[in-house]
Amino acid sequence: MVTAQGRLIGVGVGPGDPDLVTVRAVRTLERARLVLAPTLDAASPGRAERICREAAPSARIERVVMPMTSDAEASSRRRASAAEVAPLVVAALEVGGDVAWVTLGDPGIYSTFWLLVDAVHALAPDVLVEVVPGVVAFSALAAAAGVELLDDADHLVLATGRTRTEVVDAALADPDSALVLYKPGRQVQRVREAVASSDRRAVVGWLLGTPEAEIRPLAEAPDEVPYLTTVLVAPRRPRA
Amino acid sequence: MVTAQGRLIGVGVGPGDPDLVTVRAVRTLERARLVLAPTLDAASPGRAERICREAAPSARIERVVMPMTSDAEASSRRRASAAEVAPLVVAALEVGGDVAWVTLGDPGIYSTFWLLVDAVHALAPDVLVEVVPGVVAFSALAAAAGVELLDDADHLVLATGRTRTEVVDAALADPDSALVLYKPGRQVQRVREAVASSDRRAVVGWLLGTPEAEIRPLAEAPDEVPYLTTVLVAPRRPRA
Repeated sequence: MVTAQGRLIGVGVGPGDPDLVTVRAVRTLERARLVLAPTLDAASPGRAERICREAAPSARIERVVMPMTSDAEASSRRRASAAEVAPLVVAALEVGGDVAWVTLGDPGIYSTFWLLVDAVHALAPDVLVEVVPGVVAFSALAAAAGVELLDDADHLVLATGRTRTEVVDAALADPDSALVLYKPGRQVQRVREAVASSDRRAVVGWLLGTPEAEIRPLAEAPDEVPYLTTVLVAPRRPRA
Repeated sequence: MVTAQGRLIGVGVGPGDPDLVTVRAVRTLERARLVLAPTLDAASPGRAERICREAAPSARIERVVMPMTSDAEASSRRRASAAEVAPLVVAALEVGGDVAWVTLGDPGIYSTFWLLVDAVHALAPDVLVEVVPGVVAFSALAAAAGVELLDDADHLVLATGRTRTEVVDAALADPDSALVLYKPGRQVQRVREAVASSDRRAVVGWLLGTPEAEIRPLAEAPDEVPYLTTVLVAPRRPRA
């Protein structure tokens, strides 16, 4: 039986730099009885774990293996992993205190946190859930590249390499639309070519916040980019 | 003449809660020679200033009056205000040290920061510009309301009450699209009605992070909402 005191808290730790973690996230990680950090490989920490270790050195972290590739099959594997992790969360909550789950960026945006919430609620429907929002990767990339994303009546489309291509194409065809593409995979080539003939500012970045971070004009993106890549295309604006 | 040492730094102070400021933002505000904080009314602090005073009590803050309504005429008034503030920034940079400009949320997203950069560069083209990204209001609203915004192949449209209505309508008609509307003004009524007959989760919030904060289901939004209101509509998803 789970007592009412402990909460499952999804903590966004931001895009990569340990100092882009919020004050609330640091405090939450340090106070939690247990911090669960997803990784692809049990032998090495994931990026969220690395950020957590630097930003909140006293956090009590346990590593959890979680597939994070973006194909459709991986989606059901992620769900299965969440179901495997859920009993661990419930057991920790039974002991008392909060359990934090760290996610890169923000827990509401393309994160595994809500899969975990579903799996935990299937076992223990009364578990209280909280979310600590985080800085998203596209804000960090725009900041690092000195790009103004949205002004006035502009809008932004945020999508992934798995989003329907017509959504991406419509954003590229609309001069008032910014486009952000996460985990673009091979879509990087399509977007790079679509933007090449326009005068829109476009950048690509990966491994933000790590020593291997790369930020380039999109025109100089290679055909193959790392998994956690962000593409950013600004609206076509006549600046005064 | 501006020396090369001082930088103009746009600092995102997040959606409203002083503890949703990042560690980097706190440090930047405390180290800056001068922190400029926009407000509508010289006699009272703006929301960014309030957050700054709580998150970084030692910051040296100067208040700057800046119109922040969302009509087209206000846009040219904002530009004029930026031109009025620019000499103050240049003079401070000449003395030495960094000048920080605080913005709610993130400086790349519907902020006056880039207008100020343009105006400063018109006077002193060599001024170095930096940006400290911040947590955006829609992440904070989703977190507070317990809403998963994006999963898998979903996408998000971020717009304002001034964005072309067909962009908003397309997002509402697409079950894979989340919609975020900032400063919706009277558009709140249109979106509320469009969502009423669907099974999508939709919330509205204002004054986030203040004692007057309100978060409600969109169905319960009044016809008139405060200026800094955020509307959030989740994709229509069959959750397992």
